[in-house]
Amino acid sequence: MDVVRPQGAVTGAMTRAEAVALDAADPLGGFRDAFLPVADGSVVAYLDGNSLGRPPAATLDRLSALIRDEWGSRLIRGWSEGWFELPHQLGDELGAAALGAAPGQVILGDSTTVWLYKLLRAAMTARPGRTEIVTDVDNFPTDRYVVEGIAAELGCRVRWLRPDPAAGVTPAQVRDAVGPDTAVVTLSHVAYRSAFIADMAAITAVAHEAGALTVWDLCHSAGSVPVALDECGADFAVGCTYKFLCGGPGAPAFGYVPRRHADGLRQPIQGWIGHADPFAMEQGYRPAAGIGRLQSGTPPILGLAAAAEGIRLVAEAGIERIRAKAMALTEMAVALSDAWLAPHGVTLGSPRDPRLRGGHVTLCRPDAAVLSRDLIEAGVIVDYRPPDGIRVGLSPLSTGYEELWRAMDAMRDVVSEAGR
Amino acid sequence: MDVVRPQGAVTGAMTRAEAVALDAADPLGGFRDAFLPVADGSVVAYLDGNSLGRPPAATLDRLSALIRDEWGSRLIRGWSEGWFELPHQLGDELGAAALGAAPGQVILGDSTTVWLYKLLRAAMTARPGRTEIVTDVDNFPTDRYVVEGIAAELGCRVRWLRPDPAAGVTPAQVRDAVGPDTAVVTLSHVAYRSAFIADMAAITAVAHEAGALTVWDLCHSAGSVPVALDECGADFAVGCTYKFLCGGPGAPAFGYVPRRHADGLRQPIQGWIGHADPFAMEQGYRPAAGIGRLQSGTPPILGLAAAAEGIRLVAEAGIERIRAKAMALTEMAVALSDAWLAPHGVTLGSPRDPRLRGGHVTLCRPDAAVLSRDLIEAGVIVDYRPPDGIRVGLSPLSTGYEELWRAMDAMRDVVSEAGR
Repeated sequence: MDVVRPQGAVTGAMTRAEAVALDAADPLGGFRDAFLPVADGSVVAYLDGNSLGRPPAATLDRLSALIRDEWGSRLIRGWSEGWFELPHQLGDELGAAALGAAPGQVILGDSTTVWLYKLLRAAMTARPGRTEIVTDVDNFPTDRYVVEGIAAELGCRVRWLRPDPAAGVTPAQVRDAVGPDTAVVTLSHVAYRSAFIADMAAITAVAHEAGALTVWDLCHSAGSVPVALDECGADFAVGCTYKFLCGGPGAPAFGYVPRRHADGLRQPIQGWIGHADPFAMEQGYRPAAGIGRLQSGTPPILGLAAAAEGIRLVAEAGIERIRAKAMALTEMAVALSDAWLAPHGVTLGSPRDPRLRGGHVTLCRPDAAVLSRDLIEAGVIVDYRPPDGIRVGLSPLSTGYEELWRAMDAMRDVVSEAGR
Repeated sequence: MDVVRPQGAVTGAMTRAEAVALDAADPLGGFRDAFLPVADGSVVAYLDGNSLGRPPAATLDRLSALIRDEWGSRLIRGWSEGWFELPHQLGDELGAAALGAAPGQVILGDSTTVWLYKLLRAAMTARPGRTEIVTDVDNFPTDRYVVEGIAAELGCRVRWLRPDPAAGVTPAQVRDAVGPDTAVVTLSHVAYRSAFIADMAAITAVAHEAGALTVWDLCHSAGSVPVALDECGADFAVGCTYKFLCGGPGAPAFGYVPRRHADGLRQPIQGWIGHADPFAMEQGYRPAAGIGRLQSGTPPILGLAAAAEGIRLVAEAGIERIRAKAMALTEMAVALSDAWLAPHGVTLGSPRDPRLRGGHVTLCRPDAAVLSRDLIEAGVIVDYRPPDGIRVGLSPLSTGYEELWRAMDAMRDVVSEAGR
């Protein structure tokens, strides 16, 4: 496969001034001013926007207005003046901006973990008699733990795939794993450690050939890598809004259920907000039409209002432009790592082909835990991912080229010191 | 049973000036200034603090500081600098202030509905072979719907109690319903419509005699009626923080699991935050020790920070003083309803004995839906509860006597007009 390189490929000779010039030419450069600054001077470079995106400046005003004018003055009336619609409205906006989902199929609320549980259980119920769930050993921990819990409670078996180190989870691996017993295939679209992008269309097709359903985790895709849920024929998807979507710590997650599945679906946590007529308060649960039946409890309005601002920024910037900058940033990180860090024993834990790579790069060395701690102390905020990964997240709306240059320069110091 | 009346019982001759005097003498009167004012002049009286409590003024500053200084400047480091502890810390504060729960047994996160699901499922798992859930037909809709969903998925039976119109759900009714097949008895401590307070100690004892567990819904108790979870030997409890605890629309809910149950407990939604060591990201789910295993996904920090301020106010005011004012306010509402509204066909849908009554009063007339709408249009914010109830919520920290007088006066106008 050809490796795509952005024009004017980065080399180890890259100077800080050249990075500054890239920032000046960046069509998304203006978005950096849309985020609140780090007020305490403690950060040299923030390369963890894929763990927690930075706060949009507009979030501060929006939350103040929500508390003072909506909650404070409209009080309970806020529910009928827009709050109940917010999970749907933001879901539609997110679906259009970043997920390739037509309206009425995405909804916000709950945590990613709760969404995984609801949709995996719903998928199992929709495939009665089938007793296997396929996932991979490198899937994000909460995905694996939820799968294990459901398998234990339903007496099902988990088939664990081992991602190909050179290609991630492949359609061929999934084809080998699925069969007449497979109820669900659940995978991350972008792997949280390696950043491999799974081939959603091909894997979904393979699952469907076996009569199985798919549940995709989009936590590391949403707002970074374009997703085409409708076009891929994906069955279900979940994801968080606190990474590239900048919704804040523990922001509400989202679920995707296409129209073709929604009305027949039975989810396990049937609560009043998923009822066809919550305020009739009637005897007997009647699920709402469409995706509304996936709701359970009262929507978390403060968290939803905060999530709205990041979704709006992604919509304004355009997911294709975001993706282009993410590829340029990750290419720069890989090139500078090759030139500056590889001589000190750092290896690349992510794909070299940017088309196969999401919005982050994992750099490996056995002492990554210590290196990560040293980097964070030096103001370069990265993530340590066991056993040996330094994860460098590149959030295109808030991360600049010069910021990345500074970070890689600091890494060069840290890995050479620690290598002594 | 003797009916307790506050000193200087209210009569229909009560004047606005007398209500003003009660406000002046109110030891909790100062707390009214701790809430944000209604900025748009649209509210004459807010009698729905038991649906959505008003925002503490401190919440505005706390959220701004959280967004700017913690999220904005500490970024991902916020998690290790307090955010991960917040669900436990607030749970301990709430447990001490209002629930009669020793530390380490209450935790915040998720919605009430998700908590009900987790704890009811956990209770069913802890009582293998037992096939019945006992609840009541007047329980809050989400409780009933969750119970129905679990019963359907586990092939269990629901025994539906019919609350005694004169006493609510009684220990005798529960005794008649439980038996060797009963796994769980789940009830609301304060009934959402009638406001009857269930006898938690006696009902729990009756359930335990039959070998069953109890799951208590404290939504309409927490922050209004003192709860003694540890003392009553309650097994599990859930509740929201957006009513009397003033945490904001859709604020995170709480769960209570006593130490004696926590370590053996298996809950269905096993996610990474409930793991013994989330950031080891290891293969295989190992539940955390203690109540931490009840967590599933990433804690909702914005919602938790908002919930903190209401919990703090309740702790400062003291739950016994709050309860005393709630009894005085509900006594006044009952007395003025008897004098001013009963002649127009309004009847009392709540207990006359204030010791049996929570922090609200439901007033009934067949056209309650229309009356509620007219009242809200006139700026008196109440709740309609089908089929015939106008629910008057009396939130002691934010509601004044004169405010209630004005509301009852407006109701007198509305019911007499509508009665013509």
